[in-house]
Amino acid sequence: MTEVQTPLRTESDLIGTVELPTDVYYGVNTVRAAENFQLSSSRIEQFPELIEALAIIKQAAAAANRDVGALDATIANAIIAAAQDITAGQLHDQFILDMIQGGAGTSTNMNANEVIANRALEHLGYAKGDYDVLHPLNHVNMGQSTNDVYPSALKLALHKMTGTLLTNLETFRKALRAKAEEFSSTVKMGRTQMQIAVPMTLGQEFGAWATMIERAATGVKRVRFDLLELNLGGTAIGTGINANVGYRERAIEQLREITGINGISSAPDLIAATADTQIFADLSGALKRVGLTMSKIANDLRLLSSGPSGGFGEVNLPARQAGSSIMPGKVNPVIAEAVNQVAYQVAGHDAAISMAVEAGQLELNPFEPIMARGLFDSIALLANASTMFTEKCITGITANTQLMRDVVEGSAGLATVFSPVVGYKAATALAVEANETGAKVTDLAVAKGLLSRDQVEQLLNEALAL
Amino acid sequence: MTEVQTPLRTESDLIGTVELPTDVYYGVNTVRAAENFQLSSSRIEQFPELIEALAIIKQAAAAANRDVGALDATIANAIIAAAQDITAGQLHDQFILDMIQGGAGTSTNMNANEVIANRALEHLGYAKGDYDVLHPLNHVNMGQSTNDVYPSALKLALHKMTGTLLTNLETFRKALRAKAEEFSSTVKMGRTQMQIAVPMTLGQEFGAWATMIERAATGVKRVRFDLLELNLGGTAIGTGINANVGYRERAIEQLREITGINGISSAPDLIAATADTQIFADLSGALKRVGLTMSKIANDLRLLSSGPSGGFGEVNLPARQAGSSIMPGKVNPVIAEAVNQVAYQVAGHDAAISMAVEAGQLELNPFEPIMARGLFDSIALLANASTMFTEKCITGITANTQLMRDVVEGSAGLATVFSPVVGYKAATALAVEANETGAKVTDLAVAKGLLSRDQVEQLLNEALAL
Amino acid sequence: MTEVQTPLRTESDLIGTVELPTDVYYGVNTVRAAENFQLSSSRIEQFPELIEALAIIKQAAAAANRDVGALDATIANAIIAAAQDITAGQLHDQFILDMIQGGAGTSTNMNANEVIANRALEHLGYAKGDYDVLHPLNHVNMGQSTNDVYPSALKLALHKMTGTLLTNLETFRKALRAKAEEFSSTVKMGRTQMQIAVPMTLGQEFGAWATMIERAATGVKRVRFDLLELNLGGTAIGTGINANVGYRERAIEQLREITGINGISSAPDLIAATADTQIFADLSGALKRVGLTMSKIANDLRLLSSGPSGGFGEVNLPARQAGSSIMPGKVNPVIAEAVNQVAYQVAGHDAAISMAVEAGQLELNPFEPIMARGLFDSIALLANASTMFTEKCITGITANTQLMRDVVEGSAGLATVFSPVVGYKAATALAVEANETGAKVTDLAVAKGLLSRDQVEQLLNEALAL
Amino acid sequence: MTEVQTPLRTESDLIGTVELPTDVYYGVNTVRAAENFQLSSSRIEQFPELIEALAIIKQAAAAANRDVGALDATIANAIIAAAQDITAGQLHDQFILDMIQGGAGTSTNMNANEVIANRALEHLGYAKGDYDVLHPLNHVNMGQSTNDVYPSALKLALHKMTGTLLTNLETFRKALRAKAEEFSSTVKMGRTQMQIAVPMTLGQEFGAWATMIERAATGVKRVRFDLLELNLGGTAIGTGINANVGYRERAIEQLREITGINGISSAPDLIAATADTQIFADLSGALKRVGLTMSKIANDLRLLSSGPSGGFGEVNLPARQAGSSIMPGKVNPVIAEAVNQVAYQVAGHDAAISMAVEAGQLELNPFEPIMARGLFDSIALLANASTMFTEKCITGITANTQLMRDVVEGSAGLATVFSPVVGYKAATALAVEANETGAKVTDLAVAKGLLSRDQVEQLLNEALAL
Repeated sequence: MTEVQTPLRTESDLIGTVELPTDVYYGVNTVRAAENFQLSSSRIEQFPELIEALAIIKQAAAAANRDVGALDATIANAIIAAAQDITAGQLHDQFILDMIQGGAGTSTNMNANEVIANRALEHLGYAKGDYDVLHPLNHVNMGQSTNDVYPSALKLALHKMTGTLLTNLETFRKALRAKAEEFSSTVKMGRTQMQIAVPMTLGQEFGAWATMIERAATGVKRVRFDLLELNLGGTAIGTGINANVGYRERAIEQLREITGINGISSAPDLIAATADTQIFADLSGALKRVGLTMSKIANDLRLLSSGPSGGFGEVNLPARQAGSSIMPGKVNPVIAEAVNQVAYQVAGHDAAISMAVEAGQLELNPFEPIMARGLFDSIALLANASTMFTEKCITGITANTQLMRDVVEGSAGLATVFSPVVGYKAATALAVEANETGAKVTDLAVAKGLLSRDQVEQLLNEALAL
Repeated sequence: MTEVQTPLRTESDLIGTVELPTDVYYGVNTVRAAENFQLSSSRIEQFPELIEALAIIKQAAAAANRDVGALDATIANAIIAAAQDITAGQLHDQFILDMIQGGAGTSTNMNANEVIANRALEHLGYAKGDYDVLHPLNHVNMGQSTNDVYPSALKLALHKMTGTLLTNLETFRKALRAKAEEFSSTVKMGRTQMQIAVPMTLGQEFGAWATMIERAATGVKRVRFDLLELNLGGTAIGTGINANVGYRERAIEQLREITGINGISSAPDLIAATADTQIFADLSGALKRVGLTMSKIANDLRLLSSGPSGGFGEVNLPARQAGSSIMPGKVNPVIAEAVNQVAYQVAGHDAAISMAVEAGQLELNPFEPIMARGLFDSIALLANASTMFTEKCITGITANTQLMRDVVEGSAGLATVFSPVVGYKAATALAVEANETGAKVTDLAVAKGLLSRDQVEQLLNEALAL
Repeated sequence: MTEVQTPLRTESDLIGTVELPTDVYYGVNTVRAAENFQLSSSRIEQFPELIEALAIIKQAAAAANRDVGALDATIANAIIAAAQDITAGQLHDQFILDMIQGGAGTSTNMNANEVIANRALEHLGYAKGDYDVLHPLNHVNMGQSTNDVYPSALKLALHKMTGTLLTNLETFRKALRAKAEEFSSTVKMGRTQMQIAVPMTLGQEFGAWATMIERAATGVKRVRFDLLELNLGGTAIGTGINANVGYRERAIEQLREITGINGISSAPDLIAATADTQIFADLSGALKRVGLTMSKIANDLRLLSSGPSGGFGEVNLPARQAGSSIMPGKVNPVIAEAVNQVAYQVAGHDAAISMAVEAGQLELNPFEPIMARGLFDSIALLANASTMFTEKCITGITANTQLMRDVVEGSAGLATVFSPVVGYKAATALAVEANETGAKVTDLAVAKGLLSRDQVEQLLNEALAL
Repeated sequence: MTEVQTPLRTESDLIGTVELPTDVYYGVNTVRAAENFQLSSSRIEQFPELIEALAIIKQAAAAANRDVGALDATIANAIIAAAQDITAGQLHDQFILDMIQGGAGTSTNMNANEVIANRALEHLGYAKGDYDVLHPLNHVNMGQSTNDVYPSALKLALHKMTGTLLTNLETFRKALRAKAEEFSSTVKMGRTQMQIAVPMTLGQEFGAWATMIERAATGVKRVRFDLLELNLGGTAIGTGINANVGYRERAIEQLREITGINGISSAPDLIAATADTQIFADLSGALKRVGLTMSKIANDLRLLSSGPSGGFGEVNLPARQAGSSIMPGKVNPVIAEAVNQVAYQVAGHDAAISMAVEAGQLELNPFEPIMARGLFDSIALLANASTMFTEKCITGITANTQLMRDVVEGSAGLATVFSPVVGYKAATALAVEANETGAKVTDLAVAKGLLSRDQVEQLLNEALAL
């Protein structure tokens, strides 16, 4: 059997030389990293937002270097064209590395430099690897370091991803608010500590959830704005070494133009901005809040829909699938349960990110890749869970109005509304007797001469005018 | 107004001299640490088990040094007598330092050395501070370093504290088991995912909790045994520098004699045993499991006692206090809620301890004090919560037998027992119809000719013979 | 021996009667809780900010109820006087309960109601316990529920405590900034990933830390403002049941007047504000950031001061105490290590608080007490650690200027500054040869004809003009 | 353009009917779940160990049901053949569901039942979907519930995966031990708290790491054994409802035979075993310990290799790739950094798993899928990181013997060995003077007449005879 010989090209680094198929766009540094890091199933190619953010930064840098006279226009324009190919969705499969890698994202940056260099060489009519013409580091990476490129790209990618999340959360919030309207006259007993408390409407319950989601989304928005403060131009450690005069300011301008995001700015203390990764912990904290809020709603819905007998039974979640392989006809709150699990995963990533942030040393935190992996997973999970929760659960919820009304009318909790008139002590005696005997507190209050029937009616009407 | 002049003595260290009241037993190093660390409200004097473990180790070391000929018998015996005073409960108020301190417990060890030296000097008829006669470091600390003394003392203290915890857990477990007996014929519907599943007894539920507690306690027992492997004799970094030949073996023997704990042993790799604090993380993990198991039981009881109407209402927790300042007659599951909170705190300490364990470097982890503080708090909380849960809640629980029976008989979940005979599909149809119409699945099965009344009875009898 | 009989008074609740010494100000509900919850060593009396916030709220509520005509002025004024006694520091020892308690803080609120009622009765010339005249619940707690009082008090207490923290952080930041000035011309090699990178000044390093602290403090400030949005007036579940018309608005006004804090406001969705405790998780997250930032600085200083030989040795931390009981003359970075441990504890509390926040159900999260305990501990630890770090460490740091200069001049890292001129590949070869042979890259660059001596000087001068 | 019409078959559940391509082996329940859960990029098909464990359990169940006379032998044998196809690696692509799903794994079990049923139908010569002949639930799932099948399969899968992990850890441990041998005479100064302490060998350092890994692996082994205790046969909630007499015992025997693992056993309390998922938290805790131990070694190596100048510089990690896109010749400890990140991720998963375990209710914890996802990721990461650390880093480490020797000889830390002879105080003075003046403590000790030159030599020889 004859084997087809793949044509190869040779590249070298400080360790030695490697041979690569001529059709791949990455180079020696990518190959080294691919050999070194075989850890997880998360590949960079799965995260188009990161790849595109890297391309955008390379484009902005090339343009800025050209504009300040540091980079030949032909070279710069070829780099820009190559970067735009990537932003347009091409060559993503050339980003072959594991998301988890040592070196603060150096390998990812190297991968981007090499792919863009070789694509740019093609645009110029040269063969891949003709780095004397256009070099991944001397030209594509000019005035840059992984230590400013990688976190800046990460921030832009996270900015985009959180945009999707916020959109989905807003849809979720609106669905809750619509249910709040729908159930605005459905009276029920509120509960504290799992015990019957005082009357409210089911609509108020849904409305409170909508408010909570709004608050949680606000937290994401705050951090999202902070993400736009970049350390690009700080190069290796924030001193801007090897960056040309004027480059940093121009690169930021270019980024604004390319992305249309005017809020992009340059960090005032570039040393701090290079070493400090707390922004990622902040974002993770805000995501955790979103997750825990969604989980709280899921928990409440699982409680309120518990039954069908022997439970709270106040609402019905839409049946989405057979609930059991052994128990026929069982329907379970599976969508809510999936939401809970998403929240736990997000909280877990937050713990990981906290450890990574704490572990950085001196001028750099080399553990950004694990922060990126966790944040990407958290955002995607939350965005998907928002949609799932909205479409597969919230919009289909129905209420058992009569059951809730019955609980209200039979509840000893109504003694609370008599308390301001009869006093806490007498009201306690009413409630205790009602619970023990099954009598209604309303009847007891009249029978004992504490209140007239009219007074009872008036107090109840006031209490139920929610 | 004349002021009484407290008589003072002078001590010095590498920083300079300090004056101390003559009546205090601690010395210059304790004073320095007291000035340096004013962080928390946790003082060492609040933890008698730690103080006593330090004294026991100092006693064992003095005896061992004497036995191998390194320490004059008069000096050694005075140290032993002073240490025994502390074990007997004296001088605990001389341990004035904050539990949180830099330096891997050095200050705590210094504190113990100084208190014991000055007490021993008193026994010998000398004044406090006559260190030429008997020196805190040359004599009391002979052949020792904080790096072997502090973790060894910590382990002995934790061994004692976990003993109390295990006793309380066993009482808790027995209370659960007694309830399992009491409710062994109380039939109810089990629930999965908050939804009615299939029949079981309330006794089985309590029995399962007892089993879970037993398992959780087993985890503590495993680690508790590991705590007895000490690095005493390894001195500064595990090489045993400055310890006399034979001292280490003899000190371990002495510890066994003094404590009566034969399981105490010397770690086989003293370098590893000095640097590695994973045992504390292991203990914390086992404690977390205890906490989460207790929390699971608390959660389940809060659910099962939810009501009094509009909830599960299967069991009644004993009323312990008025539940609300506004809602008269409200009784809440406050004991269970306190248990939950204890579990969260223990899980929080576990997170802190994990971070501290990960942060150690090279031959020592200097962060043992925060591990100690967290573990002491976790153990005390769990031990107290076990007793509270047992006495204020579990033993007083009563069951609403009839309500549970009614739920069983009306439940569409009984379709499960027909499924092996009529098939999953037909059984699903029965359950769905029962839930929609309120009819009993038993009646439906007969009405539809799927089963005879006799078959129904037989299947139910088998299913309820739990 | 005759025993002095303490005079007793009797009080009752739904469980039965208890006898109390006549000299205590608390009542039956406090006694029940004291019996029920014996868990931790944290007593409410240790937290004056919480006690005073409770008193302020009771004062505001009494005044508001009086102003809207719901409460007799004599009664209201007596309550106000009693509350002011507490704000003035009196009666704190009457707050005897454990910080950890079931029931969402009900016992703490009951404790406050009882102490204030009995003090107010004294002011009116009545005996303690004459609740027919002035009742803890009917009057002191009028229009209130634990569920709005406790979180509102908690927020006011946290607002005050975080004020102290921010003051201390600002002092810390200024100390770092002063050192940044002092070391602004001290050139050194920056490091990424523990490896020599490119030149910077020691001042830039301290300046970056100052910036990071400023950022972390900003996070606390953001949440601190959110703390002022209260659910007071929502009563049991946010519907405002049993609160008189106008009471809520007037109570908020009163709070503004009493505290002088104009930012205090009423939450727009009181149902959500009662159920949702995410604000506490947010605060905890901001505190964690402060802790992790301080820990990062501590880690860096431990690295930079490592030695005295065989380490980085760039700075000297002031000696605060003898570092070892066995190694004479050893000085350790004990202050920095204590800071690390504080950060781990704060991160641990954050984990606990996250779990507690996620666990709430329906209209209330009953787990606020453990959030309070964790937040109080975290804030105190961070505030104390800020002061300790500033005074015992930062201000006394000195630099080993010559050593740092020597490292710069001998470093192969200087090859970076030649790279834009000679290209990445040639610069790599220079650096590798320099590291292997010990030759200077500057000399090698000239020897190999890559650069002239003048070019070298010029490039270096530019690079070191930091 | 004509479109090829895919032939379809129809299936139905309690919600309605769906049409499926005839060539897929899964059925209606899988389709429902695939629609419901679109959350993450983790698909079951990526985890062959789980798929195979499911198949093994289905095989064992079919055989057991046959053996006890509950299942026709022809049907049983077809199921067994289909299951064996899966164990042999076939049909894995039919497991299309997201790892994250509500419902305690019901959808995964349904997926397995449907794939096996349709494959078995093929073996019998029937068309897919001919469930009257052989039904996914009535036959393949006979005597089973998701609630015993899913956790049992999970445990078997985890047992297999941890086997791989332990093998890799043993290789890692041996590599460390080999280095311990290689460096057994390389004397250096040990360090505590980043400061020079007392002499040791580099071999002892590597040896301690080997010991730590051994300990960590032991923790995994302990839990791994516990994984073999299964709740299979407990069916829905542990009562064994719908399982035939003798089935449970026979199924366990079958599992032992099929897997060759004799340790497989039946849980003594099946109710507890169904509700309690602490075993997964235990495993996660043990994995976290492995991760944190590897991270500690990575941290130490990053410290010891810091430099190349201005750092510890004691060892050289093998260069694996160019370390920087801007700093030529820079080599970074990238492998160690990747190990750190793996450890953080594992710790993060542990936090998530703890939350999930705490959240279960009553007879079931529905959150097992997120536990599975986290554990699978943690094990794979740790197994891969072990291999990477061993092959790409540990085996290539070299020592800078002379540098370490120089540090030893110049170190004031040697004063420690004089302390037992000259006393702590005099030794402190020697060390302080040595550090201040740069003189050797050995010379100072002789010059001050504290020791003779012979004594000095003897003490040093003893101290260095490590």
